[in-house]
Amino acid sequence: MKIYASDQLRDFAVQIFKSIGCPEEDARLASDVLIAADLRGVDSHGVARLSGYIRLFEKDRLNPKPEIKIIHETPSTAVIDGNRGLGLVVAPRAMEIAIEKADKVGSGWVAINNSNHFGIAGYHAMMALEHDMIGLSMTNASPLVAPTFSRERLLGTNPIAVAIPAGQQPPYVADFATTTAANGKLEILQRKNEEAPSGWIQSAEGSISTNPNELQKGGALLPLGSDREHGSHKGYCLGSIVDILSAVLSGANYGPWAPPFVSFLPMPEDPVGEGLGHFVGTWRIDAFRPKEDFKANMDRWIERFRQAKTTKNEKNVLIPGDPEREFEEERKKSGIPLLKKVIQDLSQLGQQQGVPFPG
Amino acid sequence: MKIYASDQLRDFAVQIFKSIGCPEEDARLASDVLIAADLRGVDSHGVARLSGYIRLFEKDRLNPKPEIKIIHETPSTAVIDGNRGLGLVVAPRAMEIAIEKADKVGSGWVAINNSNHFGIAGYHAMMALEHDMIGLSMTNASPLVAPTFSRERLLGTNPIAVAIPAGQQPPYVADFATTTAANGKLEILQRKNEEAPSGWIQSAEGSISTNPNELQKGGALLPLGSDREHGSHKGYCLGSIVDILSAVLSGANYGPWAPPFVSFLPMPEDPVGEGLGHFVGTWRIDAFRPKEDFKANMDRWIERFRQAKTTKNEKNVLIPGDPEREFEEERKKSGIPLLKKVIQDLSQLGQQQGVPFPG
Repeated sequence: MKIYASDQLRDFAVQIFKSIGCPEEDARLASDVLIAADLRGVDSHGVARLSGYIRLFEKDRLNPKPEIKIIHETPSTAVIDGNRGLGLVVAPRAMEIAIEKADKVGSGWVAINNSNHFGIAGYHAMMALEHDMIGLSMTNASPLVAPTFSRERLLGTNPIAVAIPAGQQPPYVADFATTTAANGKLEILQRKNEEAPSGWIQSAEGSISTNPNELQKGGALLPLGSDREHGSHKGYCLGSIVDILSAVLSGANYGPWAPPFVSFLPMPEDPVGEGLGHFVGTWRIDAFRPKEDFKANMDRWIERFRQAKTTKNEKNVLIPGDPEREFEEERKKSGIPLLKKVIQDLSQLGQQQGVPFPG
Repeated sequence: MKIYASDQLRDFAVQIFKSIGCPEEDARLASDVLIAADLRGVDSHGVARLSGYIRLFEKDRLNPKPEIKIIHETPSTAVIDGNRGLGLVVAPRAMEIAIEKADKVGSGWVAINNSNHFGIAGYHAMMALEHDMIGLSMTNASPLVAPTFSRERLLGTNPIAVAIPAGQQPPYVADFATTTAANGKLEILQRKNEEAPSGWIQSAEGSISTNPNELQKGGALLPLGSDREHGSHKGYCLGSIVDILSAVLSGANYGPWAPPFVSFLPMPEDPVGEGLGHFVGTWRIDAFRPKEDFKANMDRWIERFRQAKTTKNEKNVLIPGDPEREFEEERKKSGIPLLKKVIQDLSQLGQQQGVPFPG
């Protein structure tokens, strides 16, 4: 493990994106989304993913110079064609459109097709905060999740992010996969050779498993709730709502047809739409009530929850976004730690693209 | 147990609501929401709750003749003051406003304060279907749920409903509490004197419990996910998003200040807003893409999921809304079964209000 300043990694990512033909502005935006993940402690979605995007480009699954087009719109809605661009670029652009619409008519909603992996959902939702809006973002993803009672993988980890401004308190930022555990957590167990808790995954036959390598053998991640008795049908509802809003409403590939992020997996046959889909939107606070009133009440909400009496061994009740913000404060100061494996991968990528990796 | 025709029960409920002063139209609407719950198999939210609403009226916590007012609006948003009316009436009226707005500008969002219990969330979301819109509804509720790491009950079961139209297939209708198990399920175990599965509830001290009577002793329901390892922080995110949209955005009471539905519990001191809050809204399908395309793709989505290979012992993968629709088809024909205890309660209520309960 070695520690890098976030600016070092950002500059490297910018050069890499430019090396495949991304315009400067797009390269900066995409890199900013990746580095935001590293800063916020979501290491699985940061620069560790950089080579994954480049592999997609090499397989001609990614257009570095997309012309993002509005296909259809109304005062509060739009559908955009991402033109096979980086989701890291397409999603923030879509969010800008949603913010403009909310500015005019109170709320704005943009469904996106023909995109690919958009990084951390939280980044896009949080764009709303400085406009005193509530931001929402979601995306469908490579099918790894079995709905309740299914042996087949029909849904992605399909995350939802919601960002809500407060006053004196930091904003409320929820950003979570609609599965019991994210795939990144399994990868950590694989590296450590440890068993997974019961309720995270099932085998290819659909039985309970604690083997973190189960997905490589046809097994599946489980929806939030784990099993029927503990509400997995609700996690399945959440994941499928994300799939439908992101892909059926936008005209992207949904369910098992969602294109995989990893370039070594083939594209699904008989596509039902264009690329991957996202759905983003905003509600403008003062389209509902004076923003000062709202913020004062959000502060009170946050303070009340933070002061709640805790269960044994726990220091305090967290507010969604607390852990990520603490990571961000710390890593902005002390830098971003990268695993040896990630450093090797980035060094190789740098050599290949003629962009030296720092250190 | 005895079986009643839905029209019999509906007529009785209409007369009861009229007996406390509700206008005919409101009495019919409120009764329709209750009977929809009974028909759809959500017995906990049907006529079994009727006396609960009347008790609220007797305690002067419910206005039978509310003047529902729009406090503030933009082309795609509104906040309405429910004037302490029945949530069963206020929420559908709010949904009508949301539908009108979506008709004009593509989407419509209404936050409601000063209301009370609104029945099944699914009813309101499903109002969007005949307009070829996606409907969303949610509400905050009496605090019974402890966030992750909390010993205190700070959130309600805060349900979310999403209704999505299809073409040849029946619509997709998700309607679920953001807890691992709904309170109604605990009540069934209490009656049967059976233990609850681990992961549904915790004791007043915040430790694991399987005692279905734990809530009466200060215990709490757990957010979807049950514990931190199984993602309860995500269920807590969902429940708190519902609370904030329904109550902080509308100006209602949020978190532990949400007024209890049962009239024998006192109102929380130092209210932070007006009554209970809801949040409803719609996205118009053809504000995104031609509705025929959307519906054809929804049919394909539904068919693919329904045909998925199942885990051992399961006949097929369900589509959200399937179980409720099967109940509805059956009960429209054969009637609604009521437990003896419910019949006694309704008979007493009928006597008190001078409205004879049938049979």
